[in-house]
Amino acid sequence: MHTDGALAGFDCPTCGRTHAPDDVETTCPDCGDPVTPAFDPGALAKALDARTHDATGIDRFAPAIGFDSDSRVVSLGAGGRTVVDAPSLASELGVESVRIADEGRNPTGSAVDRELAVAVSVAAERDAERVVLPSTGNAARSAAAYAGRAGLESLAYVPSRTAFLEKAMTNVHGGDLSVVEGRYADAAAAYDSADTEGFQIGPDSPFRQLGAATLAWDLFGKQPNSPDAVVVPVGHGTRLAGFFAGLSALKEMERLDSLPELYAAQPKGCAPIVTAHEAEGEIEPWDTPDSVIGPLEIPDPAVGSLALDALAASDGDAVAVPDDDALAAAVDANATTGVEVSATGGVALAGATTLAEQGALGSDVSVLVVDPLAAAAESDILRSQLMSRGI
Amino acid sequence: MHTDGALAGFDCPTCGRTHAPDDVETTCPDCGDPVTPAFDPGALAKALDARTHDATGIDRFAPAIGFDSDSRVVSLGAGGRTVVDAPSLASELGVESVRIADEGRNPTGSAVDRELAVAVSVAAERDAERVVLPSTGNAARSAAAYAGRAGLESLAYVPSRTAFLEKAMTNVHGGDLSVVEGRYADAAAAYDSADTEGFQIGPDSPFRQLGAATLAWDLFGKQPNSPDAVVVPVGHGTRLAGFFAGLSALKEMERLDSLPELYAAQPKGCAPIVTAHEAEGEIEPWDTPDSVIGPLEIPDPAVGSLALDALAASDGDAVAVPDDDALAAAVDANATTGVEVSATGGVALAGATTLAEQGALGSDVSVLVVDPLAAAAESDILRSQLMSRGI
Ligand SMILES: [Zn+2]
Ligand SMILES: [Zn+2]
Repeated sequence: MHTDGALAGFDCPTCGRTHAPDDVETTCPDCGDPVTPAFDPGALAKALDARTHDATGIDRFAPAIGFDSDSRVVSLGAGGRTVVDAPSLASELGVESVRIADEGRNPTGSAVDRELAVAVSVAAERDAERVVLPSTGNAARSAAAYAGRAGLESLAYVPSRTAFLEKAMTNVHGGDLSVVEGRYADAAAAYDSADTEGFQIGPDSPFRQLGAATLAWDLFGKQPNSPDAVVVPVGHGTRLAGFFAGLSALKEMERLDSLPELYAAQPKGCAPIVTAHEAEGEIEPWDTPDSVIGPLEIPDPAVGSLALDALAASDGDAVAVPDDDALAAAVDANATTGVEVSATGGVALAGATTLAEQGALGSDVSVLVVDPLAAAAESDILRSQLMSRGI
Repeated sequence: MHTDGALAGFDCPTCGRTHAPDDVETTCPDCGDPVTPAFDPGALAKALDARTHDATGIDRFAPAIGFDSDSRVVSLGAGGRTVVDAPSLASELGVESVRIADEGRNPTGSAVDRELAVAVSVAAERDAERVVLPSTGNAARSAAAYAGRAGLESLAYVPSRTAFLEKAMTNVHGGDLSVVEGRYADAAAAYDSADTEGFQIGPDSPFRQLGAATLAWDLFGKQPNSPDAVVVPVGHGTRLAGFFAGLSALKEMERLDSLPELYAAQPKGCAPIVTAHEAEGEIEPWDTPDSVIGPLEIPDPAVGSLALDALAASDGDAVAVPDDDALAAAVDANATTGVEVSATGGVALAGATTLAEQGALGSDVSVLVVDPLAAAAESDILRSQLMSRGI
């Protein structure tokens, strides 16, 4: 990677230093807190404008995220515009428009493909033999796919509750799994204590934020009718932090008049970021995580402080919703919009409904709801929701 | 729909007549045989060139497939360029290049989204209240999604062996299912004898071929390095027939110097099109269909004669492969390319290997393999293949 271009380095909000990409693997080398990408607006504008329409996938953004033309960028065609209009939801919520970013249409079925494409490319550039991470499941699958393509090994620690689909496809991609009895915190603890050798691409990887920034560039900037508000389901905060970094760069480049309001949605049974935002305090690990929506049952978010920064800087908010509301919102959206909204995406939709009821999203507001996951991974709990309706 | 534009009508190869779109629902109104789309090359060229880069989904092609600007086109963003390079497979096969069309990245996880987007749009335009079809599963799910979006009901007859994912998501989209004990032929027979009321969008729908033609337009034409050979897994033949119709139009428009060679791949346990092609005869229904790959276990193809025409006209061939070879090819491709190749796609990959061994695909040939399905629907049989390797 290089810093004579669009990627200026990684900022540490805690100690105020900016680090060269090559000096960073996960958190700040000085203080250990999370870091986040910083861009040179002029160089970034040039890099984004140089994209060709013919290219697909993350390699469209290679110069924008610090890769040279001879870098080994591992691409499966992640990203692009995945937005679908949802007029039925707009009338339900009483807002001007609702669009859904159907990020489940990425190569392995989730928005983390943007993140892992970048993180695995960095690992390959640094001649790593293996990538390692803790995961609720979808990042394990994505890491295995990109690592396999790059000729690297991958090892992911996942909790036993991880969906069969994610475990099966991780193995089918040739990835190794360490399945840890229990929930995500147990898998993360096992990962930490094992001190596994390999290039670390867990949720605290700033290269994953760099990949998530491409979502902002795909959805904002040159597009007419950019949304006024974006609702994102949040676990670790990696996607929200990267998305915010990408948006902030667009604002500095004067390609956005103002930042959209960013809203974080979490399940009520595990909402440490919502609680910290409401208390205007620091994030406290959640004691008794309890949600059927596994990808969001994250009691101790890896980059939660960055997520809180994004909410504050964009004049946004955070909202917690019951699992049942999330499942019902997802199923209703599947039926009326046709989009395969996941339960994870349902958390954002139910959050948008709550925000509309609270008056935070008015009748003149255009709303973008990010669904990071294909419904396939959660089809069992979506189908169960129908059972509860007697279908 | 209108015929003063790019869509000239539907040709019946049997009786030689061309029918106005509005006179057709499924097969030829005169003789009952399958019909296929015919295009006006000049008007089609104009319609294709009028596409804007900002648009996504099947509505990019609306004027090309007979919809007026005020038509009610139901779009979820199907289609686009889903092609991923597979250099590891190219060296394995000893061909110049292999690319995979990862059509599982469509809105409901399969290439039939292209088809159902068009068929349901026609149903909506004709004020149908319900769409009906027999299906192995993925078309049921897709039909439910598009019908839900259009405000129509849907009813699909599927065999009991259909994957849980397809059944679950069909219901989650609000679609009705009639689950028939047995295999696809049982479901199709039940559908036929029920004479269910509704607009028919089964595999003999020429509007589904019209949707499949967009795959040709997304992959060929303006693209540099168009493939020399295309390997497609074939069940009913709908996709192959529509793809061929789209390619033929490009050739008439002089946007292709010559047609690529088209190859049909089927599982050995149910290969009526391969058998008929080899015998240079008509298609005989398969007596004892036996394949674990459900989407391709079609004993009596709905538009098999059109598929045979496509193979003959393109100087292609047909190849049957054992289930085990298909599963092994899919798993290996998942591991080395990162692409989520389904078992159905594995039939095409194993077919390409056989064709390369036979010398049909030489070292100077660029090959496109179409994987019509997301691996998610078949993750269980892919994972089982690993079990058989002791993993
Ligand atoms: Zn620091
Ligand atoms: Zn006829």
